[in-house]
Amino acid sequence: MLSKTLLAEFQKILGQENVFSDQADLVTYSYDAAVLDQVLPAIAVRPTSSETLGRTVALCHANGLPVTVRGAGTNLSGGTIPVENGVAIITNGLNAILEINARDLYAVVQPGVVTATLAAAAAQRGLFYPPDPGSQAVSTLGGNVAENAGGLRGLKYGVTRDYVMGLKFFDVNGETVISGSRTVKCATGYNLTGLMVGSEGTLGVFDEIILKLIPPPAHQKAMVAVFDEMQSASETVAEIIAARIVPATLEFMDNFTIRAVEDYSRAGLPVDARALLLIEVDGHRAQVEEEAAKIESICRRKGAGSIQVARNAAERDKVWEARRTALSALAKLKPTLVLEDATVPRSKIPEMVGALEEIAARHTLTIGTFGHAGDGNLHPTILTDKRDQHEWERVETAIDEIFDRALALGGTLSGEHGTGIAKSRYLKKETSRATIAYSKRVKAALDPKNILNPGKIFA
Amino acid sequence: MLSKTLLAEFQKILGQENVFSDQADLVTYSYDAAVLDQVLPAIAVRPTSSETLGRTVALCHANGLPVTVRGAGTNLSGGTIPVENGVAIITNGLNAILEINARDLYAVVQPGVVTATLAAAAAQRGLFYPPDPGSQAVSTLGGNVAENAGGLRGLKYGVTRDYVMGLKFFDVNGETVISGSRTVKCATGYNLTGLMVGSEGTLGVFDEIILKLIPPPAHQKAMVAVFDEMQSASETVAEIIAARIVPATLEFMDNFTIRAVEDYSRAGLPVDARALLLIEVDGHRAQVEEEAAKIESICRRKGAGSIQVARNAAERDKVWEARRTALSALAKLKPTLVLEDATVPRSKIPEMVGALEEIAARHTLTIGTFGHAGDGNLHPTILTDKRDQHEWERVETAIDEIFDRALALGGTLSGEHGTGIAKSRYLKKETSRATIAYSKRVKAALDPKNILNPGKIFA
Repeated sequence: MLSKTLLAEFQKILGQENVFSDQADLVTYSYDAAVLDQVLPAIAVRPTSSETLGRTVALCHANGLPVTVRGAGTNLSGGTIPVENGVAIITNGLNAILEINARDLYAVVQPGVVTATLAAAAAQRGLFYPPDPGSQAVSTLGGNVAENAGGLRGLKYGVTRDYVMGLKFFDVNGETVISGSRTVKCATGYNLTGLMVGSEGTLGVFDEIILKLIPPPAHQKAMVAVFDEMQSASETVAEIIAARIVPATLEFMDNFTIRAVEDYSRAGLPVDARALLLIEVDGHRAQVEEEAAKIESICRRKGAGSIQVARNAAERDKVWEARRTALSALAKLKPTLVLEDATVPRSKIPEMVGALEEIAARHTLTIGTFGHAGDGNLHPTILTDKRDQHEWERVETAIDEIFDRALALGGTLSGEHGTGIAKSRYLKKETSRATIAYSKRVKAALDPKNILNPGKIFA
Repeated sequence: MLSKTLLAEFQKILGQENVFSDQADLVTYSYDAAVLDQVLPAIAVRPTSSETLGRTVALCHANGLPVTVRGAGTNLSGGTIPVENGVAIITNGLNAILEINARDLYAVVQPGVVTATLAAAAAQRGLFYPPDPGSQAVSTLGGNVAENAGGLRGLKYGVTRDYVMGLKFFDVNGETVISGSRTVKCATGYNLTGLMVGSEGTLGVFDEIILKLIPPPAHQKAMVAVFDEMQSASETVAEIIAARIVPATLEFMDNFTIRAVEDYSRAGLPVDARALLLIEVDGHRAQVEEEAAKIESICRRKGAGSIQVARNAAERDKVWEARRTALSALAKLKPTLVLEDATVPRSKIPEMVGALEEIAARHTLTIGTFGHAGDGNLHPTILTDKRDQHEWERVETAIDEIFDRALALGGTLSGEHGTGIAKSRYLKKETSRATIAYSKRVKAALDPKNILNPGKIFA
């Protein structure tokens, strides 16, 4: 509970209508998409301007109140779960696209702009914003930058980090820090933009984001290849990359996921397939045709039973809608869904897929696996019920083993979901003691009272 | 002068043959390519292994000795100029390519590997390392990462930052920090890789660098377009981008530079042209043909007098060799050459070119301008004699004015040459007071004794 005086100060800055302290409101902001305990903040506030955002941060700092910024709450590692007695800053009142510059190929947005909204606005101007996290229809760009969100197009187009040209953000004192530029090259001062991307709200609060836009590809071709064996599907991924083809998208779905998706969306997926690859190439028409033909031939050589090529935009959309429903389709099946994100070098995908099957079998767990095979970024998804304590213990052991295998294969704990709360205790498995100490020195210097999203990244 | 005891400690770690303290040796390491005063270090050392590099850093820290790491010394902002009584760490004994992984498309290198050496090794494996700073034939990858070096291909392929997947570096205590991964996606912990890129040796000492490689373009086409007017050449740049074409390279050269280059290299450039654009498109053959045709038509519409298309690889090489000699050709003409790097949003190139002409005329200075027009990154190059104090004062005023104009046009002080010593006093013109304070807090936390390349970035 905040003191009445402090509550009144927030109300004075933000207006009474933008300060929420009812229990019912606070519950809304107590969780995100990770399987973690709910935590209610003391209040939630909704700034509607840069100025009131900065003043809110300053007020929190002056009073030692923990601050957690929340976009759409689609975070999968607990990064948006607030701190008890802390302040949740909601960004949906900061949702203006401030500029789309079609000559210099960039956009300037406030942090609460929804990813898909920017993508659509860019498309209307004949431009392309490639990062497309699974939750793009609701996720915000502030959240995408804070988590360095990935997506289906990471293979060819990279992730959010690759599109952030500059940032304006508030330091813990509520003062404005400016990094990067509207120019495509910038080597002035420290690359604070680089530091801020993926820092999960622990080093500052975003005010404005400058994002790179690019010309869209002229053509696309999507196809679905059906495999009788997991291994041949995953080997196909490695073969495509080895053939020096970089598809825009190269996704994997195992049988369990295929059935769940088909049951959910009636997309016409082959429910008997052991595995599917969903592939899209894009670019100049001639290149698209050649690459699609090469990929088809690799798929056949690797034993694909059938290859369906989308004949038009409607069929293509159907492929990607099916893929995008995977998480929702799986979530329907059991009370608890744990979506993992361990990532390996691409060539290790066959070994990782084998390891996942073995781990699921040994612990008698249901794991549906889908994800960005072309990036080595699979999402093994454990379906369980957290109330079943015996099974939950096996789930936790399985997660440990998944991380260990990914790291043993030269991989990382998180490809695109961040560290947050969920992975903070595993950090020392991947990095050195000195790495964590180095990172903590940065955090302590920039946030000496530890009020910026405390408890995230560092256990 | 170091004490004999300390000298002996360096010799013990590195071997007597890798510790240099003769005046003649030290002069070699007292300057770089920026127009700044020479500073002799107390000693120069040449580690030949990770282990001795780490121990060297630790020894310097324990004794409060300033450390400046030096690759090839091609730095253009003074970042490699050592500190009096400090230690210059020379990286040419750390020049191994540790791994080229053709399946997962990355390389792991020591910091002393020469840029062109890696590019050639990647090409031998059928892969492509795009960043190509002007000094690539001698510059090192450690230096490229420390400065976030750009190059001619920045427009389509980005700069060094876009290729650094991960780093292993020594913190100031000589302990190993690991950031990033061999995976294409990594969202684990802070993006320390992002922070280190462009930090000019002030936050740590690189040990190993993981660099992304990509499949090379299948075809290229280079052409030279000749213009009678500066403005029509610079407007052509903006038109090409507006047509949604992203050439691999889009370079500009003014008449003064053309004459200097022709005089120097006899490349057959049209010495009467007011301005040249040197353009290369690459990719699938069909795309290359179409884009080249579109560019030709834009050039003609904008008044290009002639357009020469390279008919073969030899002619193409000749175009780029001519461009790459620009700096050397200009350097021959006068005792002092000041190569500037102010950068503007691409659409502002015509205004910036106009401003440069006006500034040169008003101060009766000789400024040759060439550079990466497609990135908005021109290199106005002032030819002067620093010993002529009257002219030098006008040069300094002109530099101030160039920066002011670039910033007024929404640009930045440095596109690709870093801040170093040369631009540190201008930093406050571009950023906010809070930005500099924020950066300094990071620096102080990670290097409390201020021994890592002190005096750079912050004035």
